[in-house]
Amino acid sequence: MASTVLYMSMSLDGYIAGPNDNPGNPGGDGFDRLHDWMWTEDWKIRPGVPTEFRQEWDRTGALIAGRRTAEQVNHWNGDNHNGVPIFIVSHRPPDPAVAEFPLVHYVTDIESAVAQALAAARGEDVLMHGASVAQRALESGVLDELQVHLVPVLFGGGLRLFDVLPDRVELDVMRVIDTPEATHLRYRVRQNS
Amino acid sequence: MASTVLYMSMSLDGYIAGPNDNPGNPGGDGFDRLHDWMWTEDWKIRPGVPTEFRQEWDRTGALIAGRRTAEQVNHWNGDNHNGVPIFIVSHRPPDPAVAEFPLVHYVTDIESAVAQALAAARGEDVLMHGASVAQRALESGVLDELQVHLVPVLFGGGLRLFDVLPDRVELDVMRVIDTPEATHLRYRVRQNS
Repeated sequence: MASTVLYMSMSLDGYIAGPNDNPGNPGGDGFDRLHDWMWTEDWKIRPGVPTEFRQEWDRTGALIAGRRTAEQVNHWNGDNHNGVPIFIVSHRPPDPAVAEFPLVHYVTDIESAVAQALAAARGEDVLMHGASVAQRALESGVLDELQVHLVPVLFGGGLRLFDVLPDRVELDVMRVIDTPEATHLRYRVRQNS
Repeated sequence: MASTVLYMSMSLDGYIAGPNDNPGNPGGDGFDRLHDWMWTEDWKIRPGVPTEFRQEWDRTGALIAGRRTAEQVNHWNGDNHNGVPIFIVSHRPPDPAVAEFPLVHYVTDIESAVAQALAAARGEDVLMHGASVAQRALESGVLDELQVHLVPVLFGGGLRLFDVLPDRVELDVMRVIDTPEATHLRYRVRQNS
Protein backbone atom coordinates (compact mmCIF):
# COMPACT_ATOMS: atom_id res chain seq x y z
CA MET A 1 0.00 0.00 0.00
CA ALA A 2 1.60 3.27 -1.10
CA SER A 3 1.87 6.11 1.38
CA THR A 4 2.29 9.86 1.19
CA VAL A 5 5.33 10.74 3.29
CA LEU A 6 6.41 14.19 4.37
CA TYR A 7 10.19 14.02 4.15
CA MET A 8 12.12 16.85 5.82
CA SER A 9 15.27 17.71 7.73
CA MET A 10 14.45 19.94 10.70
CA SER A 11 16.39 21.59 13.51
CA LEU A 12 15.37 20.75 17.09
CA ASP A 13 13.67 24.14 17.25
CA GLY A 14 11.55 23.33 14.23
CA TYR A 15 13.22 25.17 11.36
CA ILE A 16 13.67 23.74 7.86
CA ALA A 17 15.33 26.83 6.41
CA GLY A 18 17.57 29.45 7.94
CA PRO A 19 17.20 33.22 8.07
CA ASN A 20 17.52 35.25 4.83
CA ASP A 21 15.95 32.54 2.67
CA ASN A 22 15.65 33.92 -0.88
CA PRO A 23 16.39 32.86 -4.47
CA GLY A 24 20.01 34.04 -4.20
CA ASN A 25 20.43 32.10 -0.93
CA PRO A 26 18.11 29.07 -1.25
CA GLY A 27 17.26 27.59 2.13
CA GLY A 28 18.71 30.61 3.93
CA ASP A 29 21.77 30.93 6.14
CA GLY A 30 23.03 27.58 7.38
CA PHE A 31 20.73 25.49 5.20
CA ASP A 32 23.55 23.02 4.49
CA ARG A 33 23.80 22.37 8.25
CA LEU A 34 20.38 20.69 8.13
CA HIS A 35 21.55 18.31 5.41
CA ASP A 36 25.05 17.50 6.66
CA TRP A 37 23.80 14.09 7.73
CA MET A 38 22.99 13.28 4.10
CA TRP A 39 25.22 15.23 1.72
CA THR A 40 28.96 15.76 1.57
CA GLU A 41 30.26 19.23 0.72
CA ASP A 42 30.29 18.37 -2.98
CA TRP A 43 26.69 17.09 -2.83
CA LYS A 44 27.34 13.38 -2.77
CA ILE A 45 25.39 11.05 -0.49
CA ARG A 46 27.41 10.39 2.66
CA PRO A 47 28.70 6.82 3.08
CA GLY A 48 27.21 6.69 6.60
CA VAL A 49 23.61 7.43 5.61
CA PRO A 50 21.41 4.68 7.11
CA THR A 51 20.57 1.94 4.60
CA GLU A 52 16.86 2.37 5.23
CA PHE A 53 16.92 5.77 3.55
CA ARG A 54 18.76 4.57 0.47
CA GLN A 55 16.16 1.82 0.10
CA GLU A 56 13.30 4.27 0.59
CA TRP A 57 14.71 6.72 -1.95
CA ASP A 58 14.78 3.83 -4.44
CA ARG A 59 11.13 3.07 -3.67
CA THR A 60 9.93 6.63 -4.32
CA GLY A 61 7.38 6.84 -7.11
CA ALA A 62 6.54 10.55 -7.22
CA LEU A 63 7.29 13.83 -5.51
CA ILE A 64 5.11 16.72 -4.32
CA ALA A 65 6.60 20.08 -3.42
CA GLY A 66 5.63 23.68 -2.93
CA ARG A 67 6.29 26.29 -5.57
CA ARG A 68 8.69 28.26 -3.41
CA THR A 69 10.83 25.18 -2.75
CA ALA A 70 10.81 24.16 -6.42
CA GLU A 71 11.57 27.59 -7.86
CA GLN A 72 14.48 28.18 -5.52
CA VAL A 73 16.25 25.14 -6.97
CA ASN A 74 15.05 25.61 -10.58
CA HIS A 75 12.75 22.60 -10.24
CA TRP A 76 15.79 20.38 -9.63
CA ASN A 77 16.54 20.94 -13.34
CA GLY A 78 13.54 18.75 -14.01
CA ASP A 79 14.83 15.62 -12.28
CA ASN A 80 14.73 14.68 -8.61
CA HIS A 81 14.73 11.13 -7.22
CA ASN A 82 15.83 9.59 -10.53
CA GLY A 83 13.20 10.67 -12.98
CA VAL A 84 9.96 10.37 -11.02
CA PRO A 85 7.04 12.69 -11.77
CA ILE A 86 7.12 15.93 -9.77
CA PHE A 87 3.92 17.73 -8.76
CA ILE A 88 4.08 21.37 -7.68
CA VAL A 89 1.15 22.81 -5.72
CA SER A 90 0.35 26.41 -6.73
CA HIS A 91 -2.70 28.47 -7.55
CA ARG A 92 -0.78 30.41 -10.18
CA PRO A 93 0.27 28.99 -13.57
CA PRO A 94 3.93 27.93 -13.83
CA ASP A 95 6.66 30.06 -15.28
CA PRO A 96 6.84 29.28 -19.04
CA ALA A 97 10.40 27.98 -18.63
CA VAL A 98 8.99 25.02 -16.70
CA ALA A 99 7.69 23.64 -20.01
CA GLU A 100 11.21 22.33 -20.70
CA PHE A 101 10.83 19.91 -17.78
CA PRO A 102 8.40 17.19 -18.91
CA LEU A 103 8.32 15.52 -15.48
CA VAL A 104 7.16 18.69 -13.69
CA HIS A 105 3.41 19.19 -13.36
CA TYR A 106 1.65 22.16 -11.74
CA VAL A 107 -1.49 21.34 -9.77
CA THR A 108 -3.75 23.89 -8.05
CA ASP A 109 -4.60 22.05 -4.83
CA ILE A 110 -3.06 19.48 -2.51
CA GLU A 111 -5.84 16.90 -2.86
CA SER A 112 -5.42 16.78 -6.66
CA ALA A 113 -1.65 16.72 -6.30
CA VAL A 114 -1.87 13.69 -3.99
CA ALA A 115 -4.38 11.87 -6.21
CA GLN A 116 -2.29 12.43 -9.33
CA ALA A 117 1.00 11.64 -7.60
CA LEU A 118 -0.32 8.37 -6.15
CA ALA A 119 -1.61 7.34 -9.57
CA ALA A 120 1.71 8.22 -11.20
CA ALA A 121 3.73 6.45 -8.49
CA ARG A 122 2.37 3.01 -9.48
CA GLY A 123 2.34 1.61 -5.98
CA GLU A 124 5.47 3.32 -4.70
CA ASP A 125 5.51 6.01 -2.03
CA VAL A 126 4.95 9.70 -2.69
CA LEU A 127 7.41 12.01 -0.93
CA MET A 128 6.44 15.55 0.01
CA HIS A 129 8.83 18.44 0.62
CA GLY A 130 8.10 21.88 1.99
CA ALA A 131 6.36 23.62 4.87
CA SER A 132 3.28 24.92 3.06
CA VAL A 133 2.68 21.57 1.37
CA ALA A 134 3.02 19.87 4.75
CA GLN A 135 0.47 22.12 6.40
CA ARG A 136 -2.04 21.84 3.57
CA ALA A 137 -1.66 18.06 3.45
CA LEU A 138 -2.20 17.77 7.20
CA GLU A 139 -5.24 20.03 7.07
CA SER A 140 -6.71 18.08 4.17
CA GLY A 141 -6.07 14.68 5.75
CA VAL A 142 -4.01 13.42 2.81
CA LEU A 143 -0.72 12.92 4.65
CA ASP A 144 -0.05 9.33 5.80
CA GLU A 145 3.42 9.55 7.35
CA LEU A 146 6.13 11.96 8.46
CA GLN A 147 9.84 11.26 8.14
CA VAL A 148 11.58 13.96 10.13
CA HIS A 149 15.37 14.03 10.23
CA LEU A 150 15.85 15.90 13.50
CA VAL A 151 19.21 17.65 13.42
CA PRO A 152 20.98 18.44 16.72
CA VAL A 153 21.09 22.21 16.31
CA LEU A 154 18.98 25.18 17.36
CA PHE A 155 18.67 27.46 14.34
CA GLY A 156 17.10 30.32 16.28
CA GLY A 157 15.27 31.71 13.26
CA GLY A 158 14.15 30.98 9.72
CA LEU A 159 11.23 29.08 8.24
CA ARG A 160 9.36 26.64 10.46
CA LEU A 161 8.07 23.30 9.22
CA PHE A 162 4.99 23.45 11.42
CA ASP A 163 3.38 26.75 12.04
CA VAL A 164 -0.14 27.20 13.29
CA LEU A 165 -2.48 24.30 12.42
CA PRO A 166 -6.26 24.36 12.83
CA ASP A 167 -6.46 21.15 14.89
CA ARG A 168 -4.30 18.94 17.03
CA VAL A 169 -2.90 15.98 15.06
CA GLU A 170 -2.04 12.73 16.83
CA LEU A 171 0.89 10.67 15.57
CA ASP A 172 2.20 7.17 16.19
CA VAL A 173 5.94 6.58 16.36
CA MET A 174 6.78 4.04 13.65
CA ARG A 175 10.57 4.04 13.81
CA VAL A 176 13.47 5.88 15.41
CA ILE A 177 16.97 5.67 13.92
CA ASP A 178 19.51 7.11 16.33
CA THR A 179 22.74 8.44 14.80
CA PRO A 180 25.13 11.16 15.99
CA GLU A 181 24.31 13.30 12.93
CA ALA A 182 20.51 13.22 13.27
CA THR A 183 17.66 11.44 15.02
CA HIS A 184 15.51 10.03 12.25
CA LEU A 185 11.87 9.96 13.35
CA ARG A 186 9.13 8.28 11.37
CA TYR A 187 5.49 8.77 12.35
CA ARG A 188 2.11 7.65 11.08
CA VAL A 189 -0.60 10.32 11.08
CA ARG A 190 -3.82 9.38 12.85
CA GLN A 191 -6.63 10.59 10.65
CA ASN A 192 -9.67 12.06 12.35
CA SER A 193 -12.53 9.78 11.47
CA MET B 1 30.38 17.17 37.71
CA ALA B 2 26.93 18.66 38.12
CA SER B 3 25.07 19.90 35.04
CA THR B 4 22.26 22.31 34.34
CA VAL B 5 19.62 20.42 32.38
CA LEU B 6 16.65 21.89 30.60
CA TYR B 7 13.92 19.33 31.21
CA MET B 8 10.77 19.65 29.09
CA SER B 9 8.03 17.72 27.34
CA MET B 10 7.47 19.11 23.85
CA SER B 11 5.20 18.31 20.92
CA LEU B 12 6.86 17.53 17.58
CA ASP B 13 5.90 21.02 16.42
CA GLY B 14 7.73 22.57 19.34
CA TYR B 15 4.98 23.48 21.82
CA ILE B 16 5.26 23.03 25.58
CA ALA B 17 1.83 24.48 26.38
CA GLY B 18 -1.42 24.47 24.48
CA PRO B 19 -3.62 27.36 23.38
CA ASN B 20 -5.49 29.37 26.04
CA ASP B 21 -2.76 29.04 28.64
CA ASN B 22 -3.77 31.08 31.69
CA PRO B 23 -3.97 30.72 35.50
CA GLY B 24 -7.40 29.09 35.29
CA ASN B 25 -6.13 26.66 32.65
CA PRO B 26 -2.44 26.11 33.47
CA GLY B 27 -0.50 24.80 30.50
CA GLY B 28 -3.39 25.52 28.17
CA ASP B 29 -5.69 23.20 26.24
CA GLY B 30 -4.31 19.69 26.00
CA PHE B 31 -1.40 20.26 28.38
CA ASP B 32 -1.93 16.82 29.93
CA ARG B 33 -1.34 15.26 26.50
CA LEU B 34 2.30 16.36 26.70
CA HIS B 35 2.75 14.57 30.02
CA ASP B 36 0.79 11.36 29.34
CA TRP B 37 4.09 9.51 29.03
CA MET B 38 4.87 10.37 32.65
CA TRP B 39 1.71 10.86 34.69
CA THR B 40 -1.45 8.80 35.06
CA GLU B 41 -4.79 10.61 35.15
CA ASP B 42 -4.59 10.88 38.94
CA TRP B 43 -1.05 12.33 38.74
CA LYS B 44 0.92 9.24 39.67
CA ILE B 45 4.13 8.32 37.86
CA ARG B 46 3.36 5.74 35.17
CA PRO B 47 4.82 2.27 35.76
CA GLY B 48 6.33 2.28 32.26
CA VAL B 49 8.43 5.43 32.69
CA PRO B 50 12.03 4.57 31.70
CA THR B 51 14.22 3.79 34.72
CA GLU B 52 16.76 6.41 33.65
CA PHE B 53 14.30 9.18 34.44
CA ARG B 54 13.44 7.87 37.89
CA GLN B 55 17.16 7.74 38.67
CA GLU B 56 17.72 11.23 37.31
CA TRP B 57 14.81 12.66 39.31
CA ASP B 58 16.43 11.17 42.42
CA ARG B 59 19.71 12.85 41.53
CA THR B 60 18.18 16.32 41.16
CA GLY B 61 19.68 18.85 43.58
CA ALA B 62 17.85 22.06 42.68
CA LEU B 63 15.28 23.47 40.31
CA ILE B 64 15.12 26.66 38.25
CA ALA B 65 11.86 27.84 36.69
CA GLY B 66 10.26 30.92 35.24
CA ARG B 67 7.77 32.97 37.21
CA ARG B 68 4.92 32.26 34.86
CA THR B 69 5.40 28.51 35.18
CA ALA B 70 5.74 28.68 38.96
CA GLU B 71 2.77 30.97 39.60
CA GLN B 72 0.44 28.89 37.46
CA VAL B 73 0.99 25.91 39.77
CA ASN B 74 1.24 27.92 43.03
CA HIS B 75 4.98 27.22 43.22
CA TRP B 76 4.22 23.49 43.46
CA ASN B 77 2.95 24.29 46.97
CA GLY B 78 6.55 24.88 47.89
CA ASP B 79 7.82 21.39 47.09
CA ASN B 80 8.89 19.91 43.79
CA HIS B 81 11.38 17.04 43.31
CA ASN B 82 11.27 16.02 46.98
CA GLY B 83 12.26 19.12 48.83
CA VAL B 84 15.06 20.58 46.73
CA PRO B 85 15.61 24.35 46.61
CA ILE B 86 13.61 26.11 43.89
CA PHE B 87 14.90 29.25 42.16
CA ILE B 88 12.49 31.47 40.25
CA VAL B 89 13.88 33.95 37.75
CA SER B 90 12.00 37.26 37.76
CA HIS B 91 12.84 40.96 37.77
CA ARG B 92 9.86 41.71 40.01
CA PRO B 93 9.68 40.82 43.72
CA PRO B 94 7.65 37.71 44.58
CA ASP B 95 4.06 37.76 45.71
CA PRO B 96 4.07 38.01 49.54
CA ALA B 97 2.34 34.62 49.80
CA VAL B 98 5.53 32.99 48.53
CA ALA B 99 7.10 33.66 51.95
CA GLU B 100 5.28 30.60 53.24
CA PHE B 101 7.44 28.42 50.98
CA PRO B 102 10.93 28.38 52.51
CA LEU B 103 12.43 26.40 49.61
CA VAL B 104 11.38 28.99 47.00
CA HIS B 105 13.87 31.76 46.20
CA TYR B 106 13.38 34.62 43.76
CA VAL B 107 16.43 35.64 41.75
CA THR B 108 16.60 38.51 39.26
CA ASP B 109 18.75 36.99 36.52
CA ILE B 110 19.54 33.58 35.07
CA GLU B 111 23.29 33.69 35.78
CA SER B 112 22.67 34.25 39.51
CA ALA B 113 19.96 31.62 39.53
CA VAL B 114 22.34 29.05 38.03
CA ALA B 115 25.20 29.96 40.38
CA GLN B 116 22.96 29.74 43.45
CA ALA B 117 21.21 26.58 42.29
CA LEU B 118 24.50 24.78 41.55
CA ALA B 119 25.81 25.74 44.99
CA ALA B 120 22.60 24.56 46.66
CA ALA B 121 22.52 21.31 44.66
CA ARG B 122 25.71 20.01 46.33
CA GLY B 123 27.00 18.18 43.29
CA GLU B 124 23.66 17.01 41.92
CA ASP B 125 22.11 18.25 38.70
CA VAL B 126 20.02 21.40 38.39
CA LEU B 127 16.83 20.98 36.36
CA MET B 128 15.31 23.91 34.48
CA HIS B 129 11.68 24.22 33.40
CA GLY B 130 10.07 26.83 31.17
CA ALA B 131 10.49 28.50 27.80
CA SER B 132 11.76 31.89 28.93
CA VAL B 133 14.25 30.33 31.35
CA ALA B 134 15.45 28.07 28.52
CA GLN B 135 16.01 30.95 26.14
CA ARG B 136 17.81 33.10 28.70
CA ALA B 137 20.01 30.19 29.78
CA LEU B 138 20.96 29.43 26.18
CA GLU B 139 21.72 33.07 25.46
CA SER B 140 23.82 33.37 28.61
CA GLY B 141 25.76 30.16 27.96
CA VAL B 142 24.77 28.61 31.32
CA LEU B 143 22.82 25.63 29.98
CA ASP B 144 24.79 22.37 29.79
CA GLU B 145 22.22 19.85 28.58
CA LEU B 146 18.73 19.50 27.17
CA GLN B 147 16.40 16.62 28.02
CA VAL B 148 13.50 16.91 25.59
CA HIS B 149 10.64 14.43 25.84
CA LEU B 150 9.36 14.65 22.27
CA VAL B 151 5.70 13.68 22.24
CA PRO B 152 4.16 12.27 19.03
CA VAL B 153 1.56 14.96 18.51
CA LEU B 154 1.26 18.21 16.56
CA PHE B 155 -0.30 20.78 18.88
CA GLY B 156 -0.85 23.38 16.16
CA GLY B 157 -0.69 26.30 18.58
CA GLY B 158 0.29 27.38 22.07
CA LEU B 159 3.59 28.33 23.67
CA ARG B 160 6.80 27.29 21.95
CA LEU B 161 9.84 26.07 23.85
CA PHE B 162 12.25 27.67 21.39
CA ASP B 163 11.33 30.93 19.84
CA VAL B 164 13.77 33.28 18.19
CA LEU B 165 17.34 32.98 19.53
CA PRO B 166 20.16 35.42 18.78
CA ASP B 167 22.62 32.77 17.55
CA ARG B 168 22.68 29.27 16.22
CA VAL B 169 23.41 26.71 18.97
CA GLU B 170 25.08 23.41 18.13
CA LEU B 171 24.15 20.32 20.14
CA ASP B 172 25.53 16.82 20.52
CA VAL B 173 23.17 13.89 20.85
CA MET B 174 23.96 12.20 24.17
CA ARG B 175 21.15 9.65 24.38
CA VAL B 176 17.92 8.64 22.65
CA ILE B 177 15.33 6.54 24.47
CA ASP B 178 12.71 5.30 22.03
CA THR B 179 9.27 4.48 23.49
CA PRO B 180 5.82 4.54 21.90
CA GLU B 181 4.73 7.34 24.26
CA ALA B 182 7.64 9.71 23.59
CA THR B 183 11.09 9.91 22.06
CA HIS B 184 13.37 11.02 24.87
CA LEU B 185 16.23 13.09 23.49
CA ARG B 186 19.19 14.21 25.55
CA TYR B 187 21.67 16.72 24.15
CA ARG B 188 24.80 18.46 25.31
CA VAL B 189 25.06 22.15 24.41
CA ARG B 190 28.25 23.18 22.64
CA GLN B 191 29.33 26.44 24.20
CA ASN B 192 30.78 29.07 21.93
CA SER B 193 34.34 29.56 23.10
